[in-house]
Amino acid sequence: MNYEHIFDQAIERLHSEGRYRVFIDILRNKGAYPNARCFAGHNGPKPITVWCSNDYLAMGQHPKVIEAMEEALHDVGAGSGGTRNIGGNTHYHIELETELADLHGKEGALIFTSGYVSNDATLSTLAKLLPGCVIFSDELNHASMIAGIRNSGCEKKVFRHNDLEHLEELLAETDPEVPKLIAFESVYSMDGDIAPVHAICDLADKYNALTYIDEVHAVGMYGPRGGGITDRDKAADRINIIEGTLGKAFGVMGGYIAADQKVIDCIRSYAPGFIFTTSLSPVLVAGVLASVKHLKSSSEEREGQQRAAATLKQMFRDAGLPVMDSTTHIVPLMVGDPVKAKKISDVLLAEYGAYVQPINFPTVPRGTERLRFTPGPAHTEEMMRELTDALVEVWERMEMKLAA
Amino acid sequence: MNYEHIFDQAIERLHSEGRYRVFIDILRNKGAYPNARCFAGHNGPKPITVWCSNDYLAMGQHPKVIEAMEEALHDVGAGSGGTRNIGGNTHYHIELETELADLHGKEGALIFTSGYVSNDATLSTLAKLLPGCVIFSDELNHASMIAGIRNSGCEKKVFRHNDLEHLEELLAETDPEVPKLIAFESVYSMDGDIAPVHAICDLADKYNALTYIDEVHAVGMYGPRGGGITDRDKAADRINIIEGTLGKAFGVMGGYIAADQKVIDCIRSYAPGFIFTTSLSPVLVAGVLASVKHLKSSSEEREGQQRAAATLKQMFRDAGLPVMDSTTHIVPLMVGDPVKAKKISDVLLAEYGAYVQPINFPTVPRGTERLRFTPGPAHTEEMMRELTDALVEVWERMEMKLAA
Repeated sequence: MNYEHIFDQAIERLHSEGRYRVFIDILRNKGAYPNARCFAGHNGPKPITVWCSNDYLAMGQHPKVIEAMEEALHDVGAGSGGTRNIGGNTHYHIELETELADLHGKEGALIFTSGYVSNDATLSTLAKLLPGCVIFSDELNHASMIAGIRNSGCEKKVFRHNDLEHLEELLAETDPEVPKLIAFESVYSMDGDIAPVHAICDLADKYNALTYIDEVHAVGMYGPRGGGITDRDKAADRINIIEGTLGKAFGVMGGYIAADQKVIDCIRSYAPGFIFTTSLSPVLVAGVLASVKHLKSSSEEREGQQRAAATLKQMFRDAGLPVMDSTTHIVPLMVGDPVKAKKISDVLLAEYGAYVQPINFPTVPRGTERLRFTPGPAHTEEMMRELTDALVEVWERMEMKLAA
Repeated sequence: MNYEHIFDQAIERLHSEGRYRVFIDILRNKGAYPNARCFAGHNGPKPITVWCSNDYLAMGQHPKVIEAMEEALHDVGAGSGGTRNIGGNTHYHIELETELADLHGKEGALIFTSGYVSNDATLSTLAKLLPGCVIFSDELNHASMIAGIRNSGCEKKVFRHNDLEHLEELLAETDPEVPKLIAFESVYSMDGDIAPVHAICDLADKYNALTYIDEVHAVGMYGPRGGGITDRDKAADRINIIEGTLGKAFGVMGGYIAADQKVIDCIRSYAPGFIFTTSLSPVLVAGVLASVKHLKSSSEEREGQQRAAATLKQMFRDAGLPVMDSTTHIVPLMVGDPVKAKKISDVLLAEYGAYVQPINFPTVPRGTERLRFTPGPAHTEEMMRELTDALVEVWERMEMKLAA
């Protein structure tokens, strides 16, 4: 048994498929987002423009967020010092959970260390509590939902992406007496499309299924208070569990669920991924609290983001770049090849100071490798114009097709 | 199918076993640890002394840590804005990984959002990369290791706690040609005992097994540089993967592994729990960096902690309290009943302002419910004297036995 050889082979597979990942070493400049510094081995950091951040609204640099974090840091210190049950339950955690419950019009909420953990822990625990549960899962669900469903040990039925007929077919063929859970996302982050939330809830009603929605790419950004697509579409009360992140539009880090108090209490009491882990740093929780409160009453950031996304999509389209259909703030350009996607990204960074990460397998299916742009309220038209020109230049240099 | 009824029953089971958990709502006072404020519904917060924090060395309030976090907060903002691969790889992350690799004398390190995730993601991914792998797991391994092993889908053989003969028996009966991994902890946090690291490595050598050690309750606290028990016992080079936390002795939040670069590269490239999650906030990473650097060169905190633990154990013993055998900084008092453990904890908090959480199932086996004290360098002899007197008073009030 030669362990080294096995590890070598595993890495070699990635190189041979052109999808070995190199992490770009950066520091953002607070107060000047999307500007950042890139460290790449040469002399000193180089200024770049970030086009692929999930700090969608630049709330991670908002003065209210920074101030709240600084205050908490000086009031209580760096970490919580324990699990939620053993010394790590701070007053900030309680306040944030109350705020998040209110955001989604639910009785309760529960914070996790990440969105990944909230999906994994909640789905696996929920399904274990429901004997014989069958989970109906959209085929494009995020890796963390897939992990949670697999770890639940339940039977899983995968329905074609956003395909209501297929979902109904699978529901109808399932024993009416067994517990059922429909798990899906609101905004699918790599394609930028949106689930038909009400129609899925209609099916859930018809077949007596619980509903679980991942709103990580929507909370803060959609709905009059930033409650996500379920806020925009007035569907929150039809969903049993809404899951969200504190690390994207809210700009900090962490994840959560909002639901009836009973469900919250069950997950709180039974999920190992919640119980056996140091709670989120109170410094982060204080920052998120300020961010959620701000975005509940301010729509300026949301509107700025929607305008920026619409402008960039139009510029890409006008320039003949292969921008994918997206009804959201996400602007994906299809490349379809991992080596080319990486090459384009490398050239943009090295020659144009534009940072956009290539997205390849396993994040998207093979053959659909792409560049994914996330313009926000702070990306100016001039920046977008420069980016579009750079992309056209690179596209031509690499002899790739532009639309007429 | 009545979902509400199922959730009600799940909660009812906890109440009936006396292990329904109530989170104590507190805020620590920076610079005055172990002092804190407790929010309990009555008028205003009440001052308490914390006896159950895993911020073992009070590094979460160390001026260097606070300063580093404040600086990062103002330099780059609140969150990283993305996964490590997509925009969330900051220069702080690179620096901390270099620092942690050096701490353990390894080629590389990899940061996760928590110690739980580092165990779950690494063990499940590692074992999947090794076809037919059998994992040998200490029966008292932490829930996160158990999760990772289960999620790997590998065959698991559980050996009796720290029992070398049993471990060898299981190794010897296993096909010599299949990959093997021995997974264990250095300090077991609920009992406070330590694994025979070198002897386990001898068995690993003899049977060509990989070794994985969880040092979360040891890093920062043992060894001349705070590298844990493997540092103290000069065994780090015999262990393939050392796992640690950034949320206990280092005082902040997060987890990591240190290992050969090949192993790091494999986990970095293949673990969904690493790939698909927003990276640790740069503010936290900056704080940890300061903390690790400090504890590499300062032994004052470690020595203070060991002194405090020895003093408290002696006081408990002298008072006839049922202090469990512990060769570490952890001071557990056996109660053996979940209802009594909770009662004692409630009385200590309400009447004496002493906060120690009852530890019950599933954190420890049923029938071994206990109180777990973690005195640190900032707990004074006077505080310990008051605590001991309070415990004796409560023990007598509840008609529980004290040793002669």
